[in-house]
Amino acid sequence: MLYETLAARVEDLIRNGSLEPGDRIPSVRRLSAEEGVSASTVVSAYLLLERKGLVVAAPQSGFYVRRVDDLQPPEPSTPRCSAGPTEVEVCDLVADVVRAAARPELIPFGAACPDPELFPNRALNRIASAVLRREPLVSSKYDPPPGCEALRKAIAKRSLGMGFRLAPDDIITTCGAMEGITLSLLAVAKPGDLIAIESPTYFGLLQAIENLGMRAVEIPASCAEGINLERLEKAVKTKNIKACVVMPNFHNPLGSLMPDKSKKELLSLLAPREIPVIEDDIYGELGFSGPRPKPLKAFDQHGLVILCSSFSKTLSPGFRVGWAAGGRFHLKLGRLKMVNTISTPSLPQWVIAEFLESGRYDRHVRRLRTAFEHQVQRTTTGIVSHFPEGTKVSRPRGGFLLWVELPEQVNALQLHRKAMNAGISISPGPMFSPQQQFGSCIRLSCGMKWSDRVDEGLRVLGQLCCQLAVPSRRN
Amino acid sequence: MLYETLAARVEDLIRNGSLEPGDRIPSVRRLSAEEGVSASTVVSAYLLLERKGLVVAAPQSGFYVRRVDDLQPPEPSTPRCSAGPTEVEVCDLVADVVRAAARPELIPFGAACPDPELFPNRALNRIASAVLRREPLVSSKYDPPPGCEALRKAIAKRSLGMGFRLAPDDIITTCGAMEGITLSLLAVAKPGDLIAIESPTYFGLLQAIENLGMRAVEIPASCAEGINLERLEKAVKTKNIKACVVMPNFHNPLGSLMPDKSKKELLSLLAPREIPVIEDDIYGELGFSGPRPKPLKAFDQHGLVILCSSFSKTLSPGFRVGWAAGGRFHLKLGRLKMVNTISTPSLPQWVIAEFLESGRYDRHVRRLRTAFEHQVQRTTTGIVSHFPEGTKVSRPRGGFLLWVELPEQVNALQLHRKAMNAGISISPGPMFSPQQQFGSCIRLSCGMKWSDRVDEGLRVLGQLCCQLAVPSRRN
Repeated sequence: MLYETLAARVEDLIRNGSLEPGDRIPSVRRLSAEEGVSASTVVSAYLLLERKGLVVAAPQSGFYVRRVDDLQPPEPSTPRCSAGPTEVEVCDLVADVVRAAARPELIPFGAACPDPELFPNRALNRIASAVLRREPLVSSKYDPPPGCEALRKAIAKRSLGMGFRLAPDDIITTCGAMEGITLSLLAVAKPGDLIAIESPTYFGLLQAIENLGMRAVEIPASCAEGINLERLEKAVKTKNIKACVVMPNFHNPLGSLMPDKSKKELLSLLAPREIPVIEDDIYGELGFSGPRPKPLKAFDQHGLVILCSSFSKTLSPGFRVGWAAGGRFHLKLGRLKMVNTISTPSLPQWVIAEFLESGRYDRHVRRLRTAFEHQVQRTTTGIVSHFPEGTKVSRPRGGFLLWVELPEQVNALQLHRKAMNAGISISPGPMFSPQQQFGSCIRLSCGMKWSDRVDEGLRVLGQLCCQLAVPSRRN
Repeated sequence: MLYETLAARVEDLIRNGSLEPGDRIPSVRRLSAEEGVSASTVVSAYLLLERKGLVVAAPQSGFYVRRVDDLQPPEPSTPRCSAGPTEVEVCDLVADVVRAAARPELIPFGAACPDPELFPNRALNRIASAVLRREPLVSSKYDPPPGCEALRKAIAKRSLGMGFRLAPDDIITTCGAMEGITLSLLAVAKPGDLIAIESPTYFGLLQAIENLGMRAVEIPASCAEGINLERLEKAVKTKNIKACVVMPNFHNPLGSLMPDKSKKELLSLLAPREIPVIEDDIYGELGFSGPRPKPLKAFDQHGLVILCSSFSKTLSPGFRVGWAAGGRFHLKLGRLKMVNTISTPSLPQWVIAEFLESGRYDRHVRRLRTAFEHQVQRTTTGIVSHFPEGTKVSRPRGGFLLWVELPEQVNALQLHRKAMNAGISISPGPMFSPQQQFGSCIRLSCGMKWSDRVDEGLRVLGQLCCQLAVPSRRN
């Protein structure tokens, strides 16, 4: 047997999960005996796997399947951003990517959707049926801002676990977090105003800024610590920044977690200038380890932070229930909400309130974190195996998104088209920047449960990357 | 017995519904015998009731309870609007009025909410429970634009009954009609652009225009025929109007129905200039007689009309399900929707689709029309009885709203405050105009089932109006 064949067989065991990150792989002696090959063939196979980044050698101990923490690929670097503001114009890609999420025939690395089977659907549906029996008129009235009181109470109660104290009356409910963010922009800025944003950032935010005729000022953000505070400081000193939008906890797409120290610094930078901060915390519950990170809002002493969140990544995207704590902009937010969609759907608010009150939310979220961490690790391992040399991968500490910097020869838009043709959706990097930077980057969602299909999709995607990375090497 | 006492007793019978509009009231001879009073006392009582506008005398036949059509009070006149565009700034009243809708202790003439008991709640809830059993994952996914296919198919099927033909792919679903209108404004105009609107018009539209930094150009509208086409023509000829927003079918607040001829004229006025029209049709199903009026969209040959509607006035405000048919702006609408709220709540869309498909919607809407017509008639009768001389009332041909022009001494804002103190919510006229015109007008919602409580509320409101109308008479 060729050592390559043997290596491929072990790689399969790793990729199908028989050998998990951290597992010791069979000793050279044992495998050589079992397979009837020479010890040197086994060693050659293991060294190949090591070169591929799948295993690490521990001196005196043997070979182990790499943990994410052991991964050699460096994290993507902080991009250079041009200093000027740009009118946001995000391309048609966004429509492609979002619609792809509703096409079950595609392998869904594109949109940031958790696997539907990871949600507590049965429990939520049981509560819904019970509410309908108990409160048959629940959907027959408008529920104007601030929205369902039981839900606002339940959210307020949970705020203690986030390191601060919200009252039910500090909160308004919204149709998902995106409505909260849109309304927040309307509350604090006017058309033409400059909005400081992380770069890269969530494409929905870019489109909201574009739709409202505001202008984005890109501040570089890193996988390690989020927004670059020096660059932000420079921007607020030299430009008339009217608001700042950030995702401190498990950033989309970078997965970064801002240290508390940086959160405080950010506020002490903006507060003296009375610059409001819109905080998107939808991934905040999804940390892989340690206590739930505090939102920026926990450090806000001047009511300048508008905290926006939702239950779309933890309970149910189809419910369309989010919430916002608007600080000094609370009243204005409520009025804007009243016009945008009048009220938030009633039944889903009641159902979520009851689920939160039942005490099952914490258990559920713990399971979800473990699932996402596993999926992120497996995907990272797959990238290391299949993607071309020079690929860099983020090491998120929460959420379920990976930011992948491909060799610069790879054009992410071209890759997106080829991947779609191959039945795979991804989110190309230029979607995440108003200047369409990040031309060699992609965001991969690890929301789906790991399966042969996902595994195979990643392999095909890796092949496509390798193909795109090759031609210019020949030049 | 004084004739006034007798008159009051008969008035009670009319107001509590024992005698309904069109009923013959007891003959003079009979009442005189029953009550043991002289015939001339009865005649005096009936003449007093006639002066109050509660009964009409039919020669050779006797006295009858007035039908709405017999009402003497003239319809409110078409207002004069200043010619210039105005930056919209609608006052805090809107927040008051909308929030009042959620306060069960208030008598709700304010917000335009149907009585929850008029909706088919049990049927909808049964469908919801069935869908949850059949499709347990229904809420576990985003349902990105255009939204639930079954619902779009059901709406498309119904469009035939509206005099035109929509395909499911012409439609996107929205979080209520208000989201559709906001997105439509974003699709066709930019901050600073001029938007032609009816005056008076729905305050939510005024706020949407304000929030998006656009400017409203008020075009007078009449209770009889809606928007004044001559004035609209003048405006489009002299100003750079970027879009026009109208409610041709049962206008809020006027209740007017534009004749088909005027609908065609409106389009032939705007189409050559390529001015898009946003049509709000949420009351379109609620005509009191005759066939369902055609939307403007039925006459649209150039894809310039964006038709926005919802099920909030006919099935369930708490579902938050509306829809828009965007013509040539369809794609753009879908992209804007994706950013504003990502998707429309899933379960409610499925439930409405199934209710529409069950064929029960038509029966339900017929019952609803009859109920609203009755409530509008009773309220009109009450206004005639209790409100000061000189009061004018609209005669809506559909919907459940009345536009009331009070004597000019009455300050509608003052009335609003006094009414709130008395436990009654109303919508004062200035809410319906960016220039806060209509200072002596109010809108009354007749959405609630008629009851002693509603009756008494109307009586108290009439008293307050009379009090406010008096002082200046003394001057």
